[in-house]
Amino acid sequence: MSGKDEVVLLDFWPSPFGMRLRIALSEKGVDYECREENLSDKSQLLLRSNPVHKKIPVLIHNGKPVCESLIAVQYVDEVWPRRSPILPSDPYARAQARFWADYIDKKIYDLGRKIWATKGEEQEAAKRELIECLKLLEAELGDKPYFGGESFGFVDVALVPFYSWFYTYDTCGNFSVETECPKLILWAKRCLEKESVSKVLPDGEKVYKLVLELKNQLGLE
Amino acid sequence: MSGKDEVVLLDFWPSPFGMRLRIALSEKGVDYECREENLSDKSQLLLRSNPVHKKIPVLIHNGKPVCESLIAVQYVDEVWPRRSPILPSDPYARAQARFWADYIDKKIYDLGRKIWATKGEEQEAAKRELIECLKLLEAELGDKPYFGGESFGFVDVALVPFYSWFYTYDTCGNFSVETECPKLILWAKRCLEKESVSKVLPDGEKVYKLVLELKNQLGLE
Repeated sequence: MSGKDEVVLLDFWPSPFGMRLRIALSEKGVDYECREENLSDKSQLLLRSNPVHKKIPVLIHNGKPVCESLIAVQYVDEVWPRRSPILPSDPYARAQARFWADYIDKKIYDLGRKIWATKGEEQEAAKRELIECLKLLEAELGDKPYFGGESFGFVDVALVPFYSWFYTYDTCGNFSVETECPKLILWAKRCLEKESVSKVLPDGEKVYKLVLELKNQLGLE
Repeated sequence: MSGKDEVVLLDFWPSPFGMRLRIALSEKGVDYECREENLSDKSQLLLRSNPVHKKIPVLIHNGKPVCESLIAVQYVDEVWPRRSPILPSDPYARAQARFWADYIDKKIYDLGRKIWATKGEEQEAAKRELIECLKLLEAELGDKPYFGGESFGFVDVALVPFYSWFYTYDTCGNFSVETECPKLILWAKRCLEKESVSKVLPDGEKVYKLVLELKNQLGLE
């Protein structure tokens, strides 16, 4: 690609989905402009770029929008293939990486939200299921340094942004991801040694402060 | 790939997700063995091959399982790339194809199920939303012969199996997909001119008969 690529990311800083794109772009060394959206007053550009879901993140590359974070991360990997491959090259390994990233998408955010936005039995059930999911992911990681094996890859990009939310899950759910899944926390800290990750992930307490404001706005105790 | 590939598909005939794999394998000219699963008594092979979701379809290639139908269709496309490409080669077109296939996955099956498994306002709401989704897909198709443009591709593979379910949606929901989305029906009939599709899609009335049995088993009127 030429140096004239114009890359814009429509984002909202605590979004784990937006973080994926910022990590991927950083891994590839792509310069981009990040535009923070106000989700209670979405920009015309966002509504026009993602008319179907009307959600961030949207990656806009030379004026053309790509929506849905995992799809956009794959797009980034395909457009800038040379530096830091994100998907493995072997078709079976690619399918496995896509499977686990899809699993993360189907589970973690919704369960996490139930932990901070509900109470009682609903919250307890979400907590149990989230711990089960994280333990399954920890087992899939096994003794590898990254989900991608020796190098940071697609599943790592998909999951590591949730590390910024663990403090919220712990505090609202009254448990400890670290106690439940110590190896997963070691993995997250290993990822944070990469600048592409550390400069993107917000502090857990900052996310929690926002969650408290959100709970307030939503009329949740 | 050598002629010694062993390809097994764990499937259940009315599954639109299984049909995707059968269409993709047929498009590629890959011989495979299809094993029908009894979903109320799943085989050990299925439970072992898809321990996370325990769902069909599972594609087993030389003993290695690939789960989740859209991921498995991409795997098929990557392992047998020469004949009948399914994903386009351009990264932006690939991202768009993935976006619409993902949209179909997020919407159609669940809304369709609500049409045959619920009544009253829940059913009406599902019907309205399904029609809206199908109209959006019809607009995306536009005047192209296929979602993939001039050739049958990923979004076509993802969506066309639901044509077998339209008779069930029409009958249970008391409406007509054809009246709502005439161009989408013309597209489905165009797809059915391909042997890879016509030999895979079951007759709509056969699916409906099974749905009536299912409703009976589930205690739905």
